[in-house]
Amino acid sequence: MTTASSPEYRLHQLLASQQELTVATAESCTGGYVSGRITAVPGASAYFMGAVVSYAYAVKEQVLGIPRSLLDNPGAVSPECAALMAEAATRVLRATFAVSTTGIAGPTGATRRKPVGLVYIGVTGPSGTQVEEHVFPGDRQQVTDAATERALTLLTETVADYLTTNASSSGVTS
Amino acid sequence: MTTASSPEYRLHQLLASQQELTVATAESCTGGYVSGRITAVPGASAYFMGAVVSYAYAVKEQVLGIPRSLLDNPGAVSPECAALMAEAATRVLRATFAVSTTGIAGPTGATRRKPVGLVYIGVTGPSGTQVEEHVFPGDRQQVTDAATERALTLLTETVADYLTTNASSSGVTS
Repeated sequence: MTTASSPEYRLHQLLASQQELTVATAESCTGGYVSGRITAVPGASAYFMGAVVSYAYAVKEQVLGIPRSLLDNPGAVSPECAALMAEAATRVLRATFAVSTTGIAGPTGATRRKPVGLVYIGVTGPSGTQVEEHVFPGDRQQVTDAATERALTLLTETVADYLTTNASSSGVTS
Repeated sequence: MTTASSPEYRLHQLLASQQELTVATAESCTGGYVSGRITAVPGASAYFMGAVVSYAYAVKEQVLGIPRSLLDNPGAVSPECAALMAEAATRVLRATFAVSTTGIAGPTGATRRKPVGLVYIGVTGPSGTQVEEHVFPGDRQQVTDAATERALTLLTETVADYLTTNASSSGVTS
């Protein structure tokens, strides 16, 4: 649930007064909940562009442009796919920053090397792309909730870092 | 919240045994929550393609192909826009059925003719497209929740009607 201490409220505080910085999401295992929580904050339309929930491989390929060869190996649940999903979201949805999620929410879908709860979260912006690997405990709902919370936090931290760096740079005079 | 009596579980019962029928969403005011609830049901990947959350006008135009002239008049919150969003979702996300939402969740955004709580919900499938107009009471969260629930119910009813009609037709022999 969204509360005043949630990362999406901090994101709002960071971006509501900006004129040009925007965010978007590309979601698989979180199913649209990262997007939903961003829009739960009144006034989010000032900086939120939208989301692509790429649940099916066909949507990952045809809307986000993820190569089929990557979906085959290393697979849709991989750091490579998370990075490309986030980067595609900035292009397709015309956003400055984007966060992505791809993982195995369970109860089925696990493989020998990829357990239930494995989630890759990608984030991208003007300073580049990074990916985190997590194995969240719990059932399908708990994995989804934890991935949603972490994705929102990572996106917010990335925006905050960018604004801090940008403010420092422009403030340096000699 | 998703419970066993929620429409998304009935949708699962209807579609899990089908081989070719798929669903998708195009969301504005519900922000991704319709998609999220569909994916909360284990096994939804068998029939759920994904979603486009078209929060910004640019996404409605460039991802869903809604004409700018329609966004200007009658506007993004209109039955015409809801119909086109649902139809676009079936094309972009390659789904048999799609549901869309566009409305004013509040607390701001109301106009003289469009109050807070006004939501258009579109649904499309092989039998055509229909749009419902609702004015949901309550705050932003309550409007979003009510629109999400109704969108899921309308999508599920549309799939059920299609399957009933289809079964009747194919069952008629002489």
